[in-house]
Amino acid sequence: MQLMNTFDRLFPITRSITGNGVRETLKILGELVPIEQTETPTGTACFDWSVPREWNIRDAYVLDRNGRRVIDFRQSNLHVVNYSVPIRKKVSRAELLEHVYTIPEMPEAIPYRTSYYKESWGFCLQHKRLAELKDDQYDVVIDSTLENGTLTSGEGFIQGASEREVLLSTYVCHPSMANNELSGPLVTTAVYKELLSRKNLRYSYRFLYVPETIGTILFLSRKGEHLKKNLAAGYVVTCVGNKSEFTYKRSRQGNTLADRAAVHALATSGSPHSLIDWNPDGSDERQYCSPGFDLPVGSLMRIPYMKYPEYHTSLDNRSLLSEESLQESVSMYLRIIDTLEANDVFINQQPHCEPQLSKRGLYPTLGGAQSSSEIVQKLMYLLAYSDGQYDLIDIANKLKLPAASFRPQIEQLLQAGLLARQT
Amino acid sequence: MQLMNTFDRLFPITRSITGNGVRETLKILGELVPIEQTETPTGTACFDWSVPREWNIRDAYVLDRNGRRVIDFRQSNLHVVNYSVPIRKKVSRAELLEHVYTIPEMPEAIPYRTSYYKESWGFCLQHKRLAELKDDQYDVVIDSTLENGTLTSGEGFIQGASEREVLLSTYVCHPSMANNELSGPLVTTAVYKELLSRKNLRYSYRFLYVPETIGTILFLSRKGEHLKKNLAAGYVVTCVGNKSEFTYKRSRQGNTLADRAAVHALATSGSPHSLIDWNPDGSDERQYCSPGFDLPVGSLMRIPYMKYPEYHTSLDNRSLLSEESLQESVSMYLRIIDTLEANDVFINQQPHCEPQLSKRGLYPTLGGAQSSSEIVQKLMYLLAYSDGQYDLIDIANKLKLPAASFRPQIEQLLQAGLLARQT
Amino acid sequence: MQLMNTFDRLFPITRSITGNGVRETLKILGELVPIEQTETPTGTACFDWSVPREWNIRDAYVLDRNGRRVIDFRQSNLHVVNYSVPIRKKVSRAELLEHVYTIPEMPEAIPYRTSYYKESWGFCLQHKRLAELKDDQYDVVIDSTLENGTLTSGEGFIQGASEREVLLSTYVCHPSMANNELSGPLVTTAVYKELLSRKNLRYSYRFLYVPETIGTILFLSRKGEHLKKNLAAGYVVTCVGNKSEFTYKRSRQGNTLADRAAVHALATSGSPHSLIDWNPDGSDERQYCSPGFDLPVGSLMRIPYMKYPEYHTSLDNRSLLSEESLQESVSMYLRIIDTLEANDVFINQQPHCEPQLSKRGLYPTLGGAQSSSEIVQKLMYLLAYSDGQYDLIDIANKLKLPAASFRPQIEQLLQAGLLARQT
Repeated sequence: MQLMNTFDRLFPITRSITGNGVRETLKILGELVPIEQTETPTGTACFDWSVPREWNIRDAYVLDRNGRRVIDFRQSNLHVVNYSVPIRKKVSRAELLEHVYTIPEMPEAIPYRTSYYKESWGFCLQHKRLAELKDDQYDVVIDSTLENGTLTSGEGFIQGASEREVLLSTYVCHPSMANNELSGPLVTTAVYKELLSRKNLRYSYRFLYVPETIGTILFLSRKGEHLKKNLAAGYVVTCVGNKSEFTYKRSRQGNTLADRAAVHALATSGSPHSLIDWNPDGSDERQYCSPGFDLPVGSLMRIPYMKYPEYHTSLDNRSLLSEESLQESVSMYLRIIDTLEANDVFINQQPHCEPQLSKRGLYPTLGGAQSSSEIVQKLMYLLAYSDGQYDLIDIANKLKLPAASFRPQIEQLLQAGLLARQT
Repeated sequence: MQLMNTFDRLFPITRSITGNGVRETLKILGELVPIEQTETPTGTACFDWSVPREWNIRDAYVLDRNGRRVIDFRQSNLHVVNYSVPIRKKVSRAELLEHVYTIPEMPEAIPYRTSYYKESWGFCLQHKRLAELKDDQYDVVIDSTLENGTLTSGEGFIQGASEREVLLSTYVCHPSMANNELSGPLVTTAVYKELLSRKNLRYSYRFLYVPETIGTILFLSRKGEHLKKNLAAGYVVTCVGNKSEFTYKRSRQGNTLADRAAVHALATSGSPHSLIDWNPDGSDERQYCSPGFDLPVGSLMRIPYMKYPEYHTSLDNRSLLSEESLQESVSMYLRIIDTLEANDVFINQQPHCEPQLSKRGLYPTLGGAQSSSEIVQKLMYLLAYSDGQYDLIDIANKLKLPAASFRPQIEQLLQAGLLARQT
Repeated sequence: MQLMNTFDRLFPITRSITGNGVRETLKILGELVPIEQTETPTGTACFDWSVPREWNIRDAYVLDRNGRRVIDFRQSNLHVVNYSVPIRKKVSRAELLEHVYTIPEMPEAIPYRTSYYKESWGFCLQHKRLAELKDDQYDVVIDSTLENGTLTSGEGFIQGASEREVLLSTYVCHPSMANNELSGPLVTTAVYKELLSRKNLRYSYRFLYVPETIGTILFLSRKGEHLKKNLAAGYVVTCVGNKSEFTYKRSRQGNTLADRAAVHALATSGSPHSLIDWNPDGSDERQYCSPGFDLPVGSLMRIPYMKYPEYHTSLDNRSLLSEESLQESVSMYLRIIDTLEANDVFINQQPHCEPQLSKRGLYPTLGGAQSSSEIVQKLMYLLAYSDGQYDLIDIANKLKLPAASFRPQIEQLLQAGLLARQT
């Protein structure tokens, strides 16, 4: 599955928190995995918020006195402030400049700006091009609509053996930007597709594709109580496409199963990585971990939002991404899921002294060699620590080996009656 | 308020744990702030101790065969062992030397010695002058009195909104020494004076000026149970006049409100500083933190007693102090008090997802910029952590910003009904 | 007591987990301290195990076509795989080589191999000598017996004032190897002998000399419940003869009295040392700390099993040991025992402020000197922390002084009525 091919179809779309861009994005991803789209009408209340009017845009430009498009939405959808109200008027240079946003320190970058909750209009421009605006008067056209409509949410679900759920949450509201945000839905979809092919999943899996903030708040207004009861672990999938090392941002509680599985997967991967504590600067973990929910939701990223210079500009483009980096991110999320699937608490059924493994063919019969093999170590550690206080992640951490790699030894010990799964 | 001017008036006074030196000292400080003097008679019991007889001294000297004062109290009140009994006799050189104390490693320093609880007499001398004592016989005169009398305590109090108290405790029993001890009463008085000018203090403030050890034990025998009930935080103010970095010695419990406020104030001040654990080497925190009381009392010092070479000698003089250092110490104590006054536990009233700050004018309406401002961060952190588990100090520590600087944002959130103060 | 003299008598003996080697070893050690030998018949069940048949060996060799002994048990008892079944037959070179073990990376070393629980035979050889085996046929003779018999355990006991016990456990089943294992029984015996000479021991002391694993499992099957009730602290004594620094392996619980006493003894000894966490790679702590028992048993070693290259080879010989190293290990075990004997919880009987030590002659009467002496510090720390939360080890750790060195000050404070022992 070549994620960059899908990237190339999604990148040009003008997404926002509502509108056709989201629908088109979910339709393309829906060719790869089943995504159920839900439409929620403008004005629907969700906690302190309500669904805004729906925004769509066809074109936007600024004409100079020669009728030349000096700022042109068709060249880059970042040129218009997202959620700009429709406008068509002549403005003086001074008035225009009040509505033009640039980044002086990054003269090559078009900034990404939004105005979701205040009616406004504006343009974003490379700072180096500001000097070209020399005419005294301009024609400003924004051919957008801001009307009652719906907000579009996408959701996928795989039923596992248990009602306990794992959530991957990603967002689909940014126009043409690559690492933040398209890497998120792409990696989520690849993980989703892989899990569809698996049998005997223990957990159920939920995949959420919504506009950031408002989409997640809407989701929590419907499913928050359900998640409080059933969520085993969740992750916000974002900024997973560039080449930098992994960063895991813990949940607010800091040591939930979500955190322990992610930290274990990273630690046993051999990949360099950083761990950071939760804080309310960030993405949708702000909602999942708000004090009323405080869910076990972290976020595995590579370099996080706000920490790379191209963030929220036109420079966050295809060149930051690679198929290899995206696939590495897919693999790391699958390592976390493998950890969750494997983790359990076992109870040693012969806890008084070691059981005699050799009589069951589980121990080398020739003693005295320098050190016991990794296989014997796994058997010994499982027996030594399976007293109900340590789960498999704890035990695997002691040997610095992946939890999932203990499966054969667990099977042997279960079959020998030496371990039992805690119920 | 020039503290060094007051210093110059206090420095020459011969203080001890009883006597007129304490009274004169409190009278001079009482010109700046109201200090109530209490006299407690000799023999009054306090726990395992009792108030000793009162000691006063007019003169003391050693005459050589030529009638020359070779040791002279009028040159330095450190020349006589504090609490020496009256004496007037001829002594051989050998007998004299049994009563003369010097510090061989510090030949320029007159040591400070006391004999409060054993009747005795003696002189202290620069070691380099010991060789001058060549005569075989000397006249020794100590014109002191040791008689039934009283021990003098000084106390100030500012009533705040709450019965909960903050205590600053300092001592006034050392003769002419500058850093230990005059810096303590001077800084305490400046803090006291500043708080007198404040309105709407939340805590009540108590200021104690007593002889070290016995004065504090006497105080605790009267107010100890009251403090166990009402003391929010207390500090022993000592060694705060020299130029070295700050040292905070924690309370015995180690993480009381006193400690958390002091550590926060230091950490957010940008000043280099050290933190040390409580131990029973020290000053009056030995009494406040004795196991029967175990009060939340720490001590903010600069370089602590026993850690600077001039400690308890005539070299602990004016040259160690500066107005600037004293004022920095005043400021740091006020930072601690500002932290205590600001600290509280708040409860987010809309804990399910973030409240929509923009509709209340609390959030920039143009989204997408690189990072949120410090003001927005304060709002977000207050909301994210105000679940009853974190107080303001905890939240401010996460942003490494002073707790007191959150006041405007707390006010906004209280007024918006988004936060409530925990009752 | 020259331990190396006893070493020289014990080293040549062919020990195994059963047989006459163990009996002879215990007899020699029994000349120094009383050791009660117990014989347990083959087939006796102990948890998941049972006592194996008894193994004894008289001779073993491989003859080449010239009748020359190319491998000879009489040169080294490591040349035969321990527990080899009797055999007397002609074998081809190929068949012989299937039964010959060498260590290619250590061509000078004869490996130590065992086959306790699978009937088998084999020889161990220096790798450099493998090339000498050029004949096509060899005569193989192992003159051993493997028959119903008994397993031999040795035990010593000193009754102290309390039923609470301290256990030193060591093993006696390895043939001619020095650091692992003979250093263990030698050091255990020297500690045992020293304690026999002491009066007024507070704890009772148990000394166990058994074959590793099976001997300990047999012991626990009989005494495990007794130890769960009565064991204060225990240590597996092994690898204590070479010159490397000390290593303490904690008990599985990690902070038991056994651990706290050992860590304290090491920390206040000035000796460089390492602390490692428990894990189920190791010696008999695997049994003592199995989850069904989880006893407070650690192990003070020098360089541990598996961490030195000579481990379990013929190179683990006399040259690794020295009388000085053995005696240092004895001393360190005695430091731990001194710590255990001294440790207690005391309660300050005058907890409100400091008691006045000077009126009891416990404090220097001339005040003001630079710092209080170590003796005064001990008195002050004992009073300040004796609130029932801290035991003597805690208090001594704060001063970084040995717990046992507080004895005189504890006596003074007990006699003055200022401390009481917690009952």
